[in-house]
Amino acid sequence: MIKFSINKAFFLQALNATKRAISSKNAIPILSSLKIEVNSQSITLTGSNGQISIENTISAKEENAGLLVTSSGAILLEANFFINIVSSLPDITLDFEEIDQHQVVLNSGKSEITLKGKDVEQYPRLQEVGTNNPLILETKLLKTIISETAFAASTQESRPILTGIHLVLTNHKEFKAVATDSHRMSQRKLTLDHSSDNFDVVIPSRSLREFAAVFTDDIESVEVFFSSSQILFRSEYISFYTRLLEGNYPDTDRLLVNNFETEVVFNTNALRYAMERAHLISNATQNGTVKLEVINNQVTAHVNSPEVGKVNEELDTESLSGNDLTISFNPTYLIEALKALKSETVTIRFISPIRPFTLIPSDDNENFIQLITPVRTN
Amino acid sequence: MIKFSINKAFFLQALNATKRAISSKNAIPILSSLKIEVNSQSITLTGSNGQISIENTISAKEENAGLLVTSSGAILLEANFFINIVSSLPDITLDFEEIDQHQVVLNSGKSEITLKGKDVEQYPRLQEVGTNNPLILETKLLKTIISETAFAASTQESRPILTGIHLVLTNHKEFKAVATDSHRMSQRKLTLDHSSDNFDVVIPSRSLREFAAVFTDDIESVEVFFSSSQILFRSEYISFYTRLLEGNYPDTDRLLVNNFETEVVFNTNALRYAMERAHLISNATQNGTVKLEVINNQVTAHVNSPEVGKVNEELDTESLSGNDLTISFNPTYLIEALKALKSETVTIRFISPIRPFTLIPSDDNENFIQLITPVRTN
Repeated sequence: MIKFSINKAFFLQALNATKRAISSKNAIPILSSLKIEVNSQSITLTGSNGQISIENTISAKEENAGLLVTSSGAILLEANFFINIVSSLPDITLDFEEIDQHQVVLNSGKSEITLKGKDVEQYPRLQEVGTNNPLILETKLLKTIISETAFAASTQESRPILTGIHLVLTNHKEFKAVATDSHRMSQRKLTLDHSSDNFDVVIPSRSLREFAAVFTDDIESVEVFFSSSQILFRSEYISFYTRLLEGNYPDTDRLLVNNFETEVVFNTNALRYAMERAHLISNATQNGTVKLEVINNQVTAHVNSPEVGKVNEELDTESLSGNDLTISFNPTYLIEALKALKSETVTIRFISPIRPFTLIPSDDNENFIQLITPVRTN
Repeated sequence: MIKFSINKAFFLQALNATKRAISSKNAIPILSSLKIEVNSQSITLTGSNGQISIENTISAKEENAGLLVTSSGAILLEANFFINIVSSLPDITLDFEEIDQHQVVLNSGKSEITLKGKDVEQYPRLQEVGTNNPLILETKLLKTIISETAFAASTQESRPILTGIHLVLTNHKEFKAVATDSHRMSQRKLTLDHSSDNFDVVIPSRSLREFAAVFTDDIESVEVFFSSSQILFRSEYISFYTRLLEGNYPDTDRLLVNNFETEVVFNTNALRYAMERAHLISNATQNGTVKLEVINNQVTAHVNSPEVGKVNEELDTESLSGNDLTISFNPTYLIEALKALKSETVTIRFISPIRPFTLIPSDDNENFIQLITPVRTN
């Protein structure tokens, strides 16, 4: 039966990271539990919602953990409740001891709290992923790629495959991440430093957002492993599993064409704030669009709601070339696209009022491209 | 027709303070409007939800306002929408101009936004309060009194009078604020520096919480005026009206008795954290109570939930005298009472397991007293 003592703050940090995989309203009730496995040298905390699973290991070698294991074992505890109890304990250390019938006694300072747990055999077995030939990625880079693409994935379950991010490795070095909800698309490319096995997978964008929360910035790199149905991201102490989406991702390459008729370079933030103003009014219109006019070397934005009012903006440009144009679109898509851009200026290229237009950061024409579909008005 | 220009940040601050009186879901739709009245020397912003009303005046004399009035008038604008628009404007100043048919044009930088307003005649007239013989109170002191009592008022509409705070002035100087939801009571007394007319009113606690948000700490004092149905708090630029509650407030003085059998002094925060732990488990029990035992100069707290687990705590005391005692109560009431106490230690006096017990700050026996009713178990 389990017995260990541990630093409360360190334990809590690991518990909170693991909790990100746990939903208290899961259709499978046992998944609201946290699994605690204790062996002589470490504790492993496991949480899962059926889609993602997180294993967090606390090693006795880690000085700040103050972990001292007296006796090994495993138990399930109601995750939210247990974490609230631990965070409320008065002392900087806590003693965890399993007594009769899956009961746990926590001692800290002059507090003694007894909790009921469950038999660890009730917990489902997580699918395993082989750990050969890892792809190694910088955590920071992977998080950047997620923030540049995940927002463009669909949130509608009508076409489940579009709720994912398409990750592809070709020629062992050419990495591509794409997301689209069929109204807009975001694609980041990258050449890896080290070659790796090719892959072609679709990961739920929601899982990748959790990834960004679980792997903190002090974790320099992660190993990535694939199975036919899952992907595993692993650092020294954390294993993060997520299911893959099944099905064929649409061919997004055919959407990217090189020709354009009009090119405008804007200050990224100035354009974004103008669109946010336009959005306040477009929100109240029937089709929710803003109209952009490029006429006589002047760019203007217009929204007109008969009920609420109208916006007219003159937009400053850094440069402008090509044909005059009038195009309508949902300003929300442009706002989100501009938020994903880190560069000070953005180059927008238009073909026609009915063809998607592209955004690229002005300082990197090759690797990051976004695409927004206009709305036909009248 | 209105025409003025103003500093955007200053305008926004006044708009946001006024908005605290405005609910977008009001049963009277016109009250979702903001009233803007402009005369040659100032702008007055008015918002109301029928219970509280706020008038905020921006003077042309105030340098930071940058207010320049060209033409006077009055108009109603949809409050939330207008404030969102103003906060999104690009320049540090904005020009506000009324054109035909209650339309307003806002110009800021290269943005031009046109909004539809309404005729000011549609706005209800606020009841007036005579402004003779003000009671003058320090803002900070009034906010302290509110934070010490408002939480103890009832949130249930079954006895509307208990949703208020009872404010009484007797002998022209003896001020008292009381709130109770019939399970606990909090009372603050105070002797005023200057004598004033006696009063006896019940103010909705919700209104007083808004007071604390509207009158910022840089406003040193407020004038208080009474009518038969309303109270007005006024500073140089802000008038805050709230309706009074009708009916007789229960006689709370009879609840306060001087005798006691057991007295314990605790560290305020240590007791609070112990009760927060107890609450995590008591939450899962049928009657939601914690049991406090004073036995042989030792105080302990106990909760036992057959489903979830149990808590046993030894509580440190600063001093302890009187009879042994076992008493049960809802720990939430004690937690909230302790949060309202500013003193490092708290003196708790018990009469018997079925009589209310009192809390007083150990450094001020006279002016602040709280009372909690125990729960009879078995």
